[in-house]
Amino acid sequence: MKIRMNENYRLLEKNYLFSEVARRLARFREAHPEAKIIHLGIGDVTLPLPEVVTRAMAAAVEEMASQETFRGYAPEAGYDFLLEAIQRHYQRFGVELALGEIFSCDGAKSDVANLTELFGQNLVCIPDPVYPVYVDSNRMLGREIAFMPATEDNDYLPGPAELEDAVGHTVEGVIIYLCSPNNPTGAVYDRAQLEEWVKFARATGSLIIFDSAYESFIAGDYPHSIFEVEGAKECAIEVASLSKSAGFTGTRCSWTVVPAGLEAGGMNLNEMWSRRQTTKFNGVPYVVQRGAEAALSPEGEAECEALVAYYRENAQIMGAVFEERGVAYTGGANSPYLWVSCPNGMGSWEFFDRLLEDVHLVGTPGAGFGSCGEGHLRLTSFGSHEATAEACERLRRYLP
Amino acid sequence: MKIRMNENYRLLEKNYLFSEVARRLARFREAHPEAKIIHLGIGDVTLPLPEVVTRAMAAAVEEMASQETFRGYAPEAGYDFLLEAIQRHYQRFGVELALGEIFSCDGAKSDVANLTELFGQNLVCIPDPVYPVYVDSNRMLGREIAFMPATEDNDYLPGPAELEDAVGHTVEGVIIYLCSPNNPTGAVYDRAQLEEWVKFARATGSLIIFDSAYESFIAGDYPHSIFEVEGAKECAIEVASLSKSAGFTGTRCSWTVVPAGLEAGGMNLNEMWSRRQTTKFNGVPYVVQRGAEAALSPEGEAECEALVAYYRENAQIMGAVFEERGVAYTGGANSPYLWVSCPNGMGSWEFFDRLLEDVHLVGTPGAGFGSCGEGHLRLTSFGSHEATAEACERLRRYLP
Repeated sequence: MKIRMNENYRLLEKNYLFSEVARRLARFREAHPEAKIIHLGIGDVTLPLPEVVTRAMAAAVEEMASQETFRGYAPEAGYDFLLEAIQRHYQRFGVELALGEIFSCDGAKSDVANLTELFGQNLVCIPDPVYPVYVDSNRMLGREIAFMPATEDNDYLPGPAELEDAVGHTVEGVIIYLCSPNNPTGAVYDRAQLEEWVKFARATGSLIIFDSAYESFIAGDYPHSIFEVEGAKECAIEVASLSKSAGFTGTRCSWTVVPAGLEAGGMNLNEMWSRRQTTKFNGVPYVVQRGAEAALSPEGEAECEALVAYYRENAQIMGAVFEERGVAYTGGANSPYLWVSCPNGMGSWEFFDRLLEDVHLVGTPGAGFGSCGEGHLRLTSFGSHEATAEACERLRRYLP
Repeated sequence: MKIRMNENYRLLEKNYLFSEVARRLARFREAHPEAKIIHLGIGDVTLPLPEVVTRAMAAAVEEMASQETFRGYAPEAGYDFLLEAIQRHYQRFGVELALGEIFSCDGAKSDVANLTELFGQNLVCIPDPVYPVYVDSNRMLGREIAFMPATEDNDYLPGPAELEDAVGHTVEGVIIYLCSPNNPTGAVYDRAQLEEWVKFARATGSLIIFDSAYESFIAGDYPHSIFEVEGAKECAIEVASLSKSAGFTGTRCSWTVVPAGLEAGGMNLNEMWSRRQTTKFNGVPYVVQRGAEAALSPEGEAECEALVAYYRENAQIMGAVFEERGVAYTGGANSPYLWVSCPNGMGSWEFFDRLLEDVHLVGTPGAGFGSCGEGHLRLTSFGSHEATAEACERLRRYLP
């Protein structure tokens, strides 16, 4: 064909991280078919949906089976019953949202990626290491990206100073991605740090895209939402999800908060997002919306807390091993991820290979999340208690 | 804020069609609270999901409730069980697809709109009248659009000649949107006409984006898929949906077929779409995928045919009234839409007002779908038999 293609796709790196992990794993399996391999690599949940959720979904399926209660097209942003449940969820953090500021969707991945469409060419500032979707969705649009190093030196929490260092000059009107608790490092911003970010964004006319997908894992006194910080409604959009809190990775429900007053160049971001979503999206399935509503009910939130507590216990057990053995790590306490510094100066892939070959444990090499991820390995707490305890035993034997 | 926004959003027309319909309806209701209004305006189904579908969905919900059968992240393009069901669906039309050519998604609206991201600046050729998403999703990216008139003169089925007329010169490497059976006109391309389009696309290095969302309504001998035409795999992408065939408007499952060999400028469209979807989408909910699989099973297809037959009967009853009264219309026979020529030279909105005020019947003014829609009204067959029969009685009394 002679049509012109989006040439930016040529700039995308092959997303080889998980496929390379799979390749090495397959090779090892072939050589050692008897090995009992434990997987703590992928960030996918393993516990079933809360009972209150499946009960609501089953009831909704029944509604869809009868003409009197059948539902066709939903409002694109979601039924009021879901938006109101999300509104109440935010009230737990002292955040008041109007229903028109909340847009439900099929996943934080979709929302984070689709938000890029609202903007023109701006400098985009992204932490390194990072969830690859921030990078790829901007590269697909040919955006210039500055990486803010998240390293031991800054406790894996880059601030405005790292942004200005990365850019090399004073900035104005940039787009800043923050993820807290962070994937992959598990680091979490405290209130003072987020206040500094909001102050910086407002002073420079910048926009923060705040990814709170791991918010439910916060145990300590940290903000669960950027909107807990005063002034954030003038400079931030937040993307949240039920994937990790309620086990919705295979059920799909997220939401994005776009404050009503957010404007740039005389264009209102809330209206633009609404136009984008009504043009390109037809709403979350009714059955899933009822499940999401149930997950956000008081009964549902209690069940979700139990899920998170289960995973958190895994993180604690793993963290204890590394502490005992003097291996540095971050995360775990407020996040399902442990970000482990590879011992003895090993590289990410070297440590990955050692753990696979010597103790039959699979993690994710940190280098796959960005150049500053080199020398780290990400372990998840999403395994079963039994598998995690067994992994810890093996790590104890392996680490000197 | 000082960030640069996507200025193309300024070019979007306010999508006022359905809101204007709602406004006039509300005003009428206020003045005539006793009127029994019949709605044949919106293209949303009203019959419940097939029993085999809700049974499959209920079983899938149960799987999600137990750790042994719980499902987390799905493959972004869909589980093989769904892709294989879609593959078999195409075999009914004699079309062979590889599993890697099929990508399931949450809706034809999403797919049609998101496909625009793969391309650079090309001339985009769109029928008029048309489903507004083709226009808006291209306007959001600043694409130049040429409209191909679909009028009585060409039986509402523009061909390459209308395209070249609209552009005013010979074309090369353009993107062509075709929807057959058509929304809103209900017109359907026959084999010879599609062969002409495929021949034209191949000769000019152009791409056809073929929307077959209403394929299940075809009763006569018309192609159900563009891939029934030889050579289409070298110049076409097809978007299909369960919304209208299986009543999935509130359940959400579609698919897009991107042939493996489709290339332009050395870039492979199948690989690009896969990269787009794995980066920006996380798969259709497991419960919905099981429902979709059931809808595409032999038992499901039989139930879906019964749904379509029910709506088709409505279309026949309505069509009979217009024939009897000498009012010209197209559609209905192979489509849920009747595209009625407003009698006595009335404009779309005038006829809309007359029907609302005089017989309490709501249609959709054709002018809302593009300038060539002026002078037409779209009626849908998605009502109940009872409501449709009552609407026909009223039309008979009203039309001389």
